[in-house]
Amino acid sequence: MKIVECVPNFSEGRDLDKINRIMDVIKKDESIKLVNYESDVDYNRTVVTLIGDPDKMIDLILKMTEVCLKEIDLNKHSGEHARMGAIDVIPFIPVSDVLMSECVAYSEKCAELIYNTYQIPCFLYAEAARKEDRVLLPSIRKGEFEGMKDKIKEENWLPDFGEAKIHPTFGCIGVGARDFLVAYNIDLESKDIKPAKNIARYIRKSSGGFGFVQAGPVFLENRNHTQVTMNILNYKKNPIYRVFETVRMEAKRYQTEITGAEIVGLVPKDALVKSLKYYYACNNLTFFEDSSLKDIVRDVKKYMLFRDFDETKIIEYFL
Amino acid sequence: MKIVECVPNFSEGRDLDKINRIMDVIKKDESIKLVNYESDVDYNRTVVTLIGDPDKMIDLILKMTEVCLKEIDLNKHSGEHARMGAIDVIPFIPVSDVLMSECVAYSEKCAELIYNTYQIPCFLYAEAARKEDRVLLPSIRKGEFEGMKDKIKEENWLPDFGEAKIHPTFGCIGVGARDFLVAYNIDLESKDIKPAKNIARYIRKSSGGFGFVQAGPVFLENRNHTQVTMNILNYKKNPIYRVFETVRMEAKRYQTEITGAEIVGLVPKDALVKSLKYYYACNNLTFFEDSSLKDIVRDVKKYMLFRDFDETKIIEYFL
Repeated sequence: MKIVECVPNFSEGRDLDKINRIMDVIKKDESIKLVNYESDVDYNRTVVTLIGDPDKMIDLILKMTEVCLKEIDLNKHSGEHARMGAIDVIPFIPVSDVLMSECVAYSEKCAELIYNTYQIPCFLYAEAARKEDRVLLPSIRKGEFEGMKDKIKEENWLPDFGEAKIHPTFGCIGVGARDFLVAYNIDLESKDIKPAKNIARYIRKSSGGFGFVQAGPVFLENRNHTQVTMNILNYKKNPIYRVFETVRMEAKRYQTEITGAEIVGLVPKDALVKSLKYYYACNNLTFFEDSSLKDIVRDVKKYMLFRDFDETKIIEYFL
Repeated sequence: MKIVECVPNFSEGRDLDKINRIMDVIKKDESIKLVNYESDVDYNRTVVTLIGDPDKMIDLILKMTEVCLKEIDLNKHSGEHARMGAIDVIPFIPVSDVLMSECVAYSEKCAELIYNTYQIPCFLYAEAARKEDRVLLPSIRKGEFEGMKDKIKEENWLPDFGEAKIHPTFGCIGVGARDFLVAYNIDLESKDIKPAKNIARYIRKSSGGFGFVQAGPVFLENRNHTQVTMNILNYKKNPIYRVFETVRMEAKRYQTEITGAEIVGLVPKDALVKSLKYYYACNNLTFFEDSSLKDIVRDVKKYMLFRDFDETKIIEYFL
């Protein structure tokens, strides 16, 4: 059974009536699972996490485009987050039985249908990008809704689907395919920010660390300890256990230790299994392919100190 | 006291008479320390490692250019290693009391003097590169001596010093500045190549590992065990201890362990001290700045299992 995740971001995070009318369209669709949605008032933006069958996902995205076209006029929109469309970005993410190349094809199909149906131009980004300078969304979106009116006419910035003019109220959309991103935080016993700061620097790509890790330090006031906060952009190449064990190793020099770890949002079962296999192998244990989600939850707590974690954080729980 | 390392490679590795006449010029220079030289018959190339005062280094490189100009005719040269000059490459490497920016300046001065004196065109590469596509030497050298005759006339490949034609017998030279490269190997108890192969993949940049690590697996017939063989291109950002501890952690899943480690060639004291400080901190010990090279040798053996290692492998021993 093919399953993709899709995380459309729409440009309304303040007007609850509008948000509800948009979310109602999504909630009514019984073929797609709404995992979560979060509106941010400062950003004036809502992030929606969906999983389900790829073709049904595209159907829902089209219905969502229709309601956003009705509800949102970007000429009247302001917020702290950069945006170029009423739906700003639509990434397709492989979850189960789907290749990245298929997600690229779904993003192309989705973009084509959006343009043909609503005359909203679309740019393909990330793995779906057809030009080097379209891989990173911020490079496409630079200038935002206001600037895209002229930018889209430049030869280098013609949209991948559509003509050289943005939709007058909706703008334009980035549609793409990318890997699952694991938002992962490790708690350090220390209240001093220095260990978290240095360890983040040791492990993140931008200072020569692991190739798919973004990391920074944070002090959690409520919990009264520090944290290394991370995104793992490719959990296959930089598995969770390797990041965890490297942080544990580096923490020793600061006479501190890891007291816990958390996943923000969801995580694919595969990302957990890939890490558990390390610990099982170290302990001469076998991983059983029919392990239940409950078994997996028990063991990630045991070996990787996950806290506030249960089956509902694993994507497969919703399938 | 400013000290640089310089590792000129010249294009003769077979004719012992020629090699000796070239090396004699180097050996006679008492102001520069010849650390090591190695001729490779298959490559038909000799790698020379020198350390000393930067200005005296440039003087010696000029004398070496003169003798190579006399001894080597690239029209008659063949070998497995790509080459574009009788001296093919001249990297300047900061060792003591010298900044990278100063090494860039030395490489520029050296290249300018070589062209002005012998009319051999020079390309600046690595940290000294003035164009993106000159950072990597292979990109400059593509086409080799034979192809450079035409390539150097292309607008994009005009040399940084000299006119748009190579020297008829000497060719042209890549002169540059780079960080010290630590050639570092870790022994695994296992005779099976699989752990070494997988671990090399986990840690090297090209598969998403550490940003400055190149790594591969090797089976050592004489010693009857496997090894992860590595270059650490920046030991400040990817210190030896971090690579060592990560390999140790990954080895556990294969029920194997690290039995030793070796440095090929030389290593700066600073690279060892940076790693020892990790172990001292873990063990609540203080590093003393006046530690002798003997102390350092003792402790890298203790904490990082260095074998076949003594003071003569540390650059500072020669100063």
